[in-house]
Amino acid sequence: MKQTEGGVTAAKGFEAAAAAAAIKYKDRTDMALIYSKAPCRAAGTFTTNLVKAAPVKWDMEVVKHSEYAQAVVVNSGIANACTGAEGYGYCRETAAAAAAALDIPAEAVLVGSTGVIGMQLPMERIKKGIKELAETKNSSVENGTAAAKAIMTTDTVKKEIAVQFTLGGKEVTLGGMCKGSGMIHPNMCTMLSFLTTDAAISKELLQKALSTDIQDTYNMISVDGDTSTNDTVLLLANGQAGNPEITEENEDYHTFLSALNYVNTYLARKMAGDGEGATALFTVKVIHAESKEQAVTLSKSVITSSLTKAAIYGHDANWGRILCAMGYSGAQFDPEKVDLTFESAAGSLKIIENGVALDYSEKEASRILSEEEVIVIADVKMGDAQATAWGCDLTYDYVKINADYRS
Amino acid sequence: MKQTEGGVTAAKGFEAAAAAAAIKYKDRTDMALIYSKAPCRAAGTFTTNLVKAAPVKWDMEVVKHSEYAQAVVVNSGIANACTGAEGYGYCRETAAAAAAALDIPAEAVLVGSTGVIGMQLPMERIKKGIKELAETKNSSVENGTAAAKAIMTTDTVKKEIAVQFTLGGKEVTLGGMCKGSGMIHPNMCTMLSFLTTDAAISKELLQKALSTDIQDTYNMISVDGDTSTNDTVLLLANGQAGNPEITEENEDYHTFLSALNYVNTYLARKMAGDGEGATALFTVKVIHAESKEQAVTLSKSVITSSLTKAAIYGHDANWGRILCAMGYSGAQFDPEKVDLTFESAAGSLKIIENGVALDYSEKEASRILSEEEVIVIADVKMGDAQATAWGCDLTYDYVKINADYRS
Repeated sequence: MKQTEGGVTAAKGFEAAAAAAAIKYKDRTDMALIYSKAPCRAAGTFTTNLVKAAPVKWDMEVVKHSEYAQAVVVNSGIANACTGAEGYGYCRETAAAAAAALDIPAEAVLVGSTGVIGMQLPMERIKKGIKELAETKNSSVENGTAAAKAIMTTDTVKKEIAVQFTLGGKEVTLGGMCKGSGMIHPNMCTMLSFLTTDAAISKELLQKALSTDIQDTYNMISVDGDTSTNDTVLLLANGQAGNPEITEENEDYHTFLSALNYVNTYLARKMAGDGEGATALFTVKVIHAESKEQAVTLSKSVITSSLTKAAIYGHDANWGRILCAMGYSGAQFDPEKVDLTFESAAGSLKIIENGVALDYSEKEASRILSEEEVIVIADVKMGDAQATAWGCDLTYDYVKINADYRS
Repeated sequence: MKQTEGGVTAAKGFEAAAAAAAIKYKDRTDMALIYSKAPCRAAGTFTTNLVKAAPVKWDMEVVKHSEYAQAVVVNSGIANACTGAEGYGYCRETAAAAAAALDIPAEAVLVGSTGVIGMQLPMERIKKGIKELAETKNSSVENGTAAAKAIMTTDTVKKEIAVQFTLGGKEVTLGGMCKGSGMIHPNMCTMLSFLTTDAAISKELLQKALSTDIQDTYNMISVDGDTSTNDTVLLLANGQAGNPEITEENEDYHTFLSALNYVNTYLARKMAGDGEGATALFTVKVIHAESKEQAVTLSKSVITSSLTKAAIYGHDANWGRILCAMGYSGAQFDPEKVDLTFESAAGSLKIIENGVALDYSEKEASRILSEEEVIVIADVKMGDAQATAWGCDLTYDYVKINADYRS
């Protein structure tokens, strides 16, 4: 497997476009289209928040009931959440407009929205945007990148990636783009992630692969503990690579799953590190856990701890807060067996051994903590399971961004 | 029942003292003593964090096994957490020193510590402090207040209160002091709370009253989602009021419970409103819930939501974040039935009715949100249960305080 350029347009038969439709802000590119020349099998995973945005409800229907999918229309600026029946109707209208412009069935159109909650979509502008998207779509890397930028809200960087690998002797490509920066938390952190592949794979296994992989990727990130109303991951497969269709969990399935994991891990880490106001990607790895579940609970508790996040921002090796976050996580472990190590590009430093602080240099610890990615490794010495979670530091800018968001 | 002046020295037979022992900082009053001339029945509730500080372990033993308690020695600056067997030994030494100075058994001495995690107690200074405390203790209001100040860490205000009520025709007093500002969360939020009463009540009912009441008070507050290693509430009853001993859940028991609830609610709200960096007490009341449990889950989810807390700081009526926090709480409810109202000293404004935003004035909402206490009332229209949780806004100062805590 190797990384290749581009994102959602990298796989055969996929096109993209971006348009400035003035959904919430003038002169901002805020609509994107993903289109496949050939019909796709679609898999999706969605927010577990009880409060689901209209686009989430629409997409759940499409993934569940439609024979195939062929386009995704995305807008930023307005989330179309808490908009009632009117908002759901606008999803239908969006799909109908895209269907007309692209000459495909409305039920083959998926939608995505991100932005403020409670405002209705400005449908005239949406439809105008759709016309422009349909006219300007193509399979270039530039268009894929423009789409990746169009879906950004408080993100500071675009997030896209593509990889190539071999299935049954054929070259297959899997690419994706996502957005996500604030209101991110496990259980389908807030984010929109769109993945495209030319692999031939059954709908059942496509969904299984996605549902399996999100447990280790998107569900392992947190920016601030809030799970959104709009979380969506969509994976479209159009079979254009011509590989023997994957219909069972054979070697090709596992190769596909590895590629999916590579892409999703990249995108998830990118989101965690671009958390609102973040200056550092904060990675927590729990090793030698009794079970995967325990490792997941422990690592997620640490990356979600406000006090720990603030300490990371201050380059402070405040291990007490880390142990404390592990202690209230709900997972069982023996605090007197825990080793904690800080790691980064600047080096590695063990600070706790069997629950007691070693005689380490605060200066050295601070040096290691001053990198763009800071890793904490917690060894609980109970078994062979492990898990890695990704978050970010808590900074003044997080507060600034979120105290002023709607102004 | 009426409020009276003072705190831990208000009840008959209780004395207090404060001393500057230079535990972590020079010239800071950082040790306190509570002493009862007559032996006390003791009740206690402690952190559910798996990582328990040495003083917590010591107190759990005393409350469980000692025949009576008669003193509490508290220090701020160092939490004596994650200090291993050595740290536990220092609890024993502290109790022994107090026992010698006060002429009581060591197992009648409770201890409390708050401050940084991982450092050992400077025992020579602790013992010196104990000598001074034993020599200067008395039952004055001033000494009680000095003790309340001595236990502060990042608190900006002292927290104490006392009430008087009648049991069996006798005047009874219940007073308390607490500290807690950062690292506060339900499940025995970080805090140290010390309550003294001259009521005569069996140990069993004393413990039952405390364990019951913390569910509605200390367990309903959050500053930042972190539950500490040191959470402790101790309630000492020395019977000096001479009332008929409470040995069953009769009218006197319920009167006592009401007084305890009044005192604990006051102290809990005071802590929530004094959250690190806080500018506002953020109160969330869920009404017409299906069950108490549901109301508790929903209200606690909202006060813990970083995005909501930041919005409160910005005086932004960001109801979407509130609904979202309710939606990911894990409690079941119908988002399309929810009413949300903002309330404060400046007025009241309904903003959501049956899940849809009303046409409210943002200016008016902002005006209401600019008070020192901001209340959100969420009506889920499912039953008759309710719960109230207290938190605070998320500000730049929270980050500032916690990124620099150990420096």
